[in-house]
Amino acid sequence: MARGPSSSSVPSTPLLKDELDIVIPTIRNLDFLEMWRPFFQPYHLIIVQDGDPSKTIKVPEGFDYELYNRNDINRILGPKASCISFKDSACRCFGYMVSKKKYIYTIDDDCFVAKDPSGKDINALEQHIKNLLAPSTPFFFNTLYDPFRDGADFVRGYPFSLREGVPTAVSHGLWLNIPDYDAPTQLVKPLERNTRFVDAVLTIPKGTLFPMCGMNLAFNRELIGPSMYFGLMGDGQPIGRYDDMWAGWCTKVICDHLGLGVKTGLPYIWHSKASNPFVNLKKEYNGIFWQEELIPFFQAATLPKECTTVQKCYVELSKQVREKLGKVDPYFNKLADAMVTWIEAWDELNPSENAIISANGSANAK
Amino acid sequence: MARGPSSSSVPSTPLLKDELDIVIPTIRNLDFLEMWRPFFQPYHLIIVQDGDPSKTIKVPEGFDYELYNRNDINRILGPKASCISFKDSACRCFGYMVSKKKYIYTIDDDCFVAKDPSGKDINALEQHIKNLLAPSTPFFFNTLYDPFRDGADFVRGYPFSLREGVPTAVSHGLWLNIPDYDAPTQLVKPLERNTRFVDAVLTIPKGTLFPMCGMNLAFNRELIGPSMYFGLMGDGQPIGRYDDMWAGWCTKVICDHLGLGVKTGLPYIWHSKASNPFVNLKKEYNGIFWQEELIPFFQAATLPKECTTVQKCYVELSKQVREKLGKVDPYFNKLADAMVTWIEAWDELNPSENAIISANGSANAK
Repeated sequence: MARGPSSSSVPSTPLLKDELDIVIPTIRNLDFLEMWRPFFQPYHLIIVQDGDPSKTIKVPEGFDYELYNRNDINRILGPKASCISFKDSACRCFGYMVSKKKYIYTIDDDCFVAKDPSGKDINALEQHIKNLLAPSTPFFFNTLYDPFRDGADFVRGYPFSLREGVPTAVSHGLWLNIPDYDAPTQLVKPLERNTRFVDAVLTIPKGTLFPMCGMNLAFNRELIGPSMYFGLMGDGQPIGRYDDMWAGWCTKVICDHLGLGVKTGLPYIWHSKASNPFVNLKKEYNGIFWQEELIPFFQAATLPKECTTVQKCYVELSKQVREKLGKVDPYFNKLADAMVTWIEAWDELNPSENAIISANGSANAK
Repeated sequence: MARGPSSSSVPSTPLLKDELDIVIPTIRNLDFLEMWRPFFQPYHLIIVQDGDPSKTIKVPEGFDYELYNRNDINRILGPKASCISFKDSACRCFGYMVSKKKYIYTIDDDCFVAKDPSGKDINALEQHIKNLLAPSTPFFFNTLYDPFRDGADFVRGYPFSLREGVPTAVSHGLWLNIPDYDAPTQLVKPLERNTRFVDAVLTIPKGTLFPMCGMNLAFNRELIGPSMYFGLMGDGQPIGRYDDMWAGWCTKVICDHLGLGVKTGLPYIWHSKASNPFVNLKKEYNGIFWQEELIPFFQAATLPKECTTVQKCYVELSKQVREKLGKVDPYFNKLADAMVTWIEAWDELNPSENAIISANGSANAK
């Protein structure tokens, strides 16, 4: 594990400076950080190097970071390293596991600073932190979107008993320029760009699933960390590009059960480069087929009352994956095993963290 | 019933010109229509005059309209007129009943043309029509919002089997300037104005309730008309300002059952005048209390498979209202009766319309 120098010239105190890690999976030099310097430099980075571990990744000067390559992962997790994907950005979830902070922000290295309609640079991290620190409202839809934003509130007809909201576990940010399309849509609409800046943050209602993209994502590691497993993708696996989706579906089911909130919308980042749709199609085609079974599975999934921690929820979900999805493809038996390994590894690296979810959280569960 | 002259100078052919009525409840001269002239003049208006029927309401020249006052309502519905509220804008639903068109747009007379961020006048009606003509996606959330808008699509991870969507029954528009707050919020934040233009349309997911405001609302009358009953409010009733909420909760439950979509977001209108919060509190206080029971009631409401038309759904819902909400207050027994009367009156005025919902619609029901 390489460790870079600590930043010394932090201007004012940024939000959650000592409580948040930025996790970046990469296979190349991190020049993209230059553009993020004003916003990221005060924070600690966890870089997860994918691919050839003998390669040296260059990190711009002045950033405080730790870097893990495959050798590090194997050394730290031993046989349990099998649950961490190789040659796929799914490896990023190793960073969530080794972090000791309360919050995680993860971003891809082809994502740059976007501008708001007034031309101002968007501090994506700051918006994510605001999203995470304000409650969510999953039980009833507010038509003026996030009622906790400046200038907004709950509208007429919103039950007062629900206005306190619930703790926010996830903040899902969006992308200007290259939209996060699947290979078939990329092939059909190669020139489509997302130019619409939607000035909204909203809670995804309880019981509703969504496609969680890992490009620009923040979460409360203490509340939901162990469900942010990005699955078995890439090298030796029959599927890719479903790592974040898998994590999102599992996480949403568990958030719904534990009475935690998931927000989507602001902030935007600038997604610079469309990945190759032919390569993507090869990675995705099993997923495109399987997701037709996965969505009904997750929509119907319920967790028993005894599941009062994320870990317990996740292990229970792994059983249901084996039982219900093992028939779809043997891959899901392997994935169910990996889900259990992931939780074992998480608990090993985070021994004091068990059973953090409060009774308050589970009281909101159906 | 007064009937105004037909418009003769329509420029090009506006969308759905002969298939949509604009319903306006009012107690005053309709000067506000001047500002809407470029957008509304091609359409037929149904004006429902509330309060003193001897008063003459002035409609600006050039609009094609029919106007009903209380005497007209009593004459047309006879004893069934009891289901139409008096001295409350809930009376507007009479207009839905007498319309013979496929689509309805309803707007309050204190709502003006808003401007988009570029300063251009927003044709609210045109946006509503676009919302209604494009499918909804209630079964899975799309993070780039309405996938059918220009420049948008379904994102990676959105199941292909769900991309066809379902027919859209309701388009709920929003308000710049004066937000639609309840009396307590108005009292606490008298100066708050909505200045945030959120450039999004989205489907409210299946199973999620929302506060439907009647100020700026469009719907497919053929698909969902009979559920758009605005209840018993105003004169002689213990409640006001819950007319649209009631209609919205009933409608959402029925849309979910029949596999129909409800959209919210664009278009914005400019809401000019905050109503008096003290008067509003007097109208609302029972509702503020009762809604704490109503929301769990509607969240738990399920309709049997045999309910294949809106009418059947609505009558079934009226039974559940009597059974479950009658205990909350005797008012709900009266309301349940009125719900049945409303459907009887609807069917009387629309004899050929029964059982229009297709098997396709009900096939999507849970």
